[in-house]
Amino acid sequence: MNVTTEQLFTEARTHNGFFPEPVPESTLRAIYELMKWGPTSANCSPARFIFVNTPEGKAKLGPCMSEGNRAKTLAAPVTVIIGMDMAFYDKLPQLFPHTDARPWFAGKPAVIEATAFRNSSLQGAYFMMAARSLGLDCGPMSGFDGELMDATFWAGTTVKTNFVCNLGKGDPSKIFGRSPRLSFEEACSFA
Amino acid sequence: MNVTTEQLFTEARTHNGFFPEPVPESTLRAIYELMKWGPTSANCSPARFIFVNTPEGKAKLGPCMSEGNRAKTLAAPVTVIIGMDMAFYDKLPQLFPHTDARPWFAGKPAVIEATAFRNSSLQGAYFMMAARSLGLDCGPMSGFDGELMDATFWAGTTVKTNFVCNLGKGDPSKIFGRSPRLSFEEACSFA
Repeated sequence: MNVTTEQLFTEARTHNGFFPEPVPESTLRAIYELMKWGPTSANCSPARFIFVNTPEGKAKLGPCMSEGNRAKTLAAPVTVIIGMDMAFYDKLPQLFPHTDARPWFAGKPAVIEATAFRNSSLQGAYFMMAARSLGLDCGPMSGFDGELMDATFWAGTTVKTNFVCNLGKGDPSKIFGRSPRLSFEEACSFA
Repeated sequence: MNVTTEQLFTEARTHNGFFPEPVPESTLRAIYELMKWGPTSANCSPARFIFVNTPEGKAKLGPCMSEGNRAKTLAAPVTVIIGMDMAFYDKLPQLFPHTDARPWFAGKPAVIEATAFRNSSLQGAYFMMAARSLGLDCGPMSGFDGELMDATFWAGTTVKTNFVCNLGKGDPSKIFGRSPRLSFEEACSFA
């Protein structure tokens, strides 16, 4: 499928307001079917996703969001909660079948924590790039009550929330002015 | 610029071997000029990049890599070290000029750590998507000696290594068989 770097990067913006049209479930599934192919350490694929797209789900989500993120999150057609399974290594026999990679992680809390967080973040970025590829706009946020979010949406699981992202067709009238980026020389060097 | 989702996701693979052709500096700069636009919390943009593309740089990099990653890293035309600036908040007056966001982070080590790690990981994923957009292949790795890497490449700075990625034109004969991914039902749900 054809996309452009304008759509992915140079003209894509973080959206604060979305038009009310719902996002079809088929589109949400299509995002996953693209982003799942992005690389993770030992293919560990720790990200888990909850698509909040019902009034009941939004009613549970509202109190979890920080004040400044609440109204726009409740108004967005879909909010995806991107979590990380802290027991991701239990799926390695399925995901990395050619060797026994479970002992690389099991019983090593610091390695587990870093691997889950790094790789679910990578997968969150793949998710946004896939959503933009399919013509959606994104509004990612990390301003929420993590403990309440985990208790509300991931109770009884080994998953913790990483970040949250509103999805839909963005309303360009609600975009903020674009902030500057670091120059190549400020961010990069050679060795 | 036109790209395809096959190039970004469904046909892209993690590469272990690369053809020896060097990657022009202009291409490395072009990757940054795309990926820098990807979203980060408060535009904090904590990722920093060292492009290791000289024999001297590779000689310093070799001892930092884990045994299993060393030979392929030394053979790749470029290896990018993706770091995270733990003092990223000092750049917020430049990067997020419309409000004073520095106090959201300064003096809060847990928030700094999570923000630097999450957002530099997101930026690492944007980097790989941008590299693939420009026709390069990627070989990301987290198997290295972090302390030695930091001491070797980021001494005297506030930057720590997040992960490392080989770059170039991949040799398809050295790809491993593709590992399975979780099904939509295993990774996703609705609320």
